Amino acid sequence: MKLGVIAVESPDGREARLVAVEPRDGTAIDLRAAERIRLERSGAAPAAARRLAAAHFPSSMAEAIAAGPEFRSRVQAAAETGEPRLAIDRVAWLPAIDPPVMRDCLAFERHMVNASQRIGLQVNPLYYELPAYYKGSRSGLIGHGHKVRWPAYAEFMDYELELGFIIGRGGTNLVPEEALSHIFGVTIFNDFSARDIQGREMRLGLGPAKGKDFATAVGPWITTLDELDLGTLEMVARVNGEEWSRGSSGSIMWSPAELVAYVSCGEYLQPGDLIGSGTVGGGCGLELGRQLSPGDVVELEVSGIGVLRNQLGQPENAGWNPTPRRPAAAVGGE
Amino acid sequence: MKLGVIAVESPDGREARLVAVEPRDGTAIDLRAAERIRLERSGAAPAAARRLAAAHFPSSMAEAIAAGPEFRSRVQAAAETGEPRLAIDRVAWLPAIDPPVMRDCLAFERHMVNASQRIGLQVNPLYYELPAYYKGSRSGLIGHGHKVRWPAYAEFMDYELELGFIIGRGGTNLVPEEALSHIFGVTIFNDFSARDIQGREMRLGLGPAKGKDFATAVGPWITTLDELDLGTLEMVARVNGEEWSRGSSGSIMWSPAELVAYVSCGEYLQPGDLIGSGTVGGGCGLELGRQLSPGDVVELEVSGIGVLRNQLGQPENAGWNPTPRRPAAAVGGE
Repeated sequence: MKLGVIAVESPDGREARLVAVEPRDGTAIDLRAAERIRLERSGAAPAAARRLAAAHFPSSMAEAIAAGPEFRSRVQAAAETGEPRLAIDRVAWLPAIDPPVMRDCLAFERHMVNASQRIGLQVNPLYYELPAYYKGSRSGLIGHGHKVRWPAYAEFMDYELELGFIIGRGGTNLVPEEALSHIFGVTIFNDFSARDIQGREMRLGLGPAKGKDFATAVGPWITTLDELDLGTLEMVARVNGEEWSRGSSGSIMWSPAELVAYVSCGEYLQPGDLIGSGTVGGGCGLELGRQLSPGDVVELEVSGIGVLRNQLGQPENAGWNPTPRRPAAAVGGE
Repeated sequence: MKLGVIAVESPDGREARLVAVEPRDGTAIDLRAAERIRLERSGAAPAAARRLAAAHFPSSMAEAIAAGPEFRSRVQAAAETGEPRLAIDRVAWLPAIDPPVMRDCLAFERHMVNASQRIGLQVNPLYYELPAYYKGSRSGLIGHGHKVRWPAYAEFMDYELELGFIIGRGGTNLVPEEALSHIFGVTIFNDFSARDIQGREMRLGLGPAKGKDFATAVGPWITTLDELDLGTLEMVARVNGEEWSRGSSGSIMWSPAELVAYVSCGEYLQPGDLIGSGTVGGGCGLELGRQLSPGDVVELEVSGIGVLRNQLGQPENAGWNPTPRRPAAAVGGE
């Protein structure tokens, strides 16, 4: 099944609604409304049907997924009502997931090698020992069709063609053999990047922040794991309709199961957590010597999922910049 | 005012409740219960009083803070009922905040210099240009009195004596002059660290993950900004009762207003966001050449806030470790 989140107008302002998507006929079913209808048809009083439908299909995809198998069976039952049906090219998409924690790995070796060569660095041998990741910011998540902020400090803007693994079941200290069953589904993940500031930040060892957190697109929806072969997903990136990148999920060095197991080491994986795969080899402008421009339209396509499309905004007006400090002479002395 | 979160037993299992804390008489007031009582006394029917009290005082501190000035005035009104009163040394504390996004800076120069010297590195000049931070993991947040996980991969365990700034009002592209008014209050922040793995990860440029995310303590509660002078907070760390660290908030290099402004550059600050100050100079074992042992009790005390106490657990049993990879010969060629 394919599941997404859309925004609809309500008497209380915009609200998020979960939908089951049927890309082949171009429609999506509003799950809360469908479940309410189904319950009423089965004999529930309207107020009770509304209450139960809201509990099963809250505004949060992560909270919905946390119900486990109950969520999946409710989706199936609700979707069978077949209504209300919306045209997927006319709805307002929200990020496909609102993750409790968002991490992004570096699991495709060729990206690591290509990107390192471009910036004149050797790949650190540690890369082959640790399935490293940085933690993203939930505040920058955007959905399919949303404009991408262009912060004032950014010059070299880039996209990254990635998969996003959505956790279904929590856990800790998992081993790879069991980890795959903790993945609920996969979405498309565009880790928009401001390369100039990213390069400066990463030299301080704390990971990227301003280089990434202004915008990360996830969507258009999630395809559940049972519908996908994780080893053969075709991944393509187009800028203004021109193909820039093409790769396959099969070239991943750390498997999705290893990534999930590693994330769970010594900490708690939670339902709805989002784990980016890292960029597929050749899957960003940095590797190709190309940059994005204001107004560019970036489309990421992954077989079995769909197309995630976002347009770059205009650069924001120059804002405040921190005043550089001078090292204190007496430092270390006290 | 001082505000915290506690866990209480309910017919539906443990639930989180917000409390107003009065450390001088050793008590805390359950705000939802107090507000319900207040509303009933003012003429509200019991069910209506319960509904409104639950809306004003949800389980989430971040959601409560997001109500803005309305939240503060409700706290004051509810706390005036003076009941129900709980003994603060008998309640179960939860993390004082459930932040939408959690960041941790490096704003004390002396910590940066001392720590760099210990690991044989020079301070990168970029440190004086960017108020850099890493993003933490909400899944590792623990409250006052919670045990600290000791992951199997960790050997050199450490504490970090920090302040935690809690955002009250969201915003973007703020300037320092307005940023201070976006801080709701301050809590104590113990950024527990596994130094061995942290050092390895940071060399990969993505920031710490396994070195930090197993546990971060925040609490015991939040003191609102109006009760504090951010320039003169005394900060002390004790291990098993022995003083290891002492410093002052006044030695910070990037001011709290600058940190908040920088975080808001090009992205959205949200109510409830948590921004760690970074370790005060001398505020961790790494700087002192000392390590924590299983069972150690770490107390962080900050004037105007209180004492945050946590005990280290026992090391977990060895778990799965990723199998190192060999660089692919053909990499970069495709």
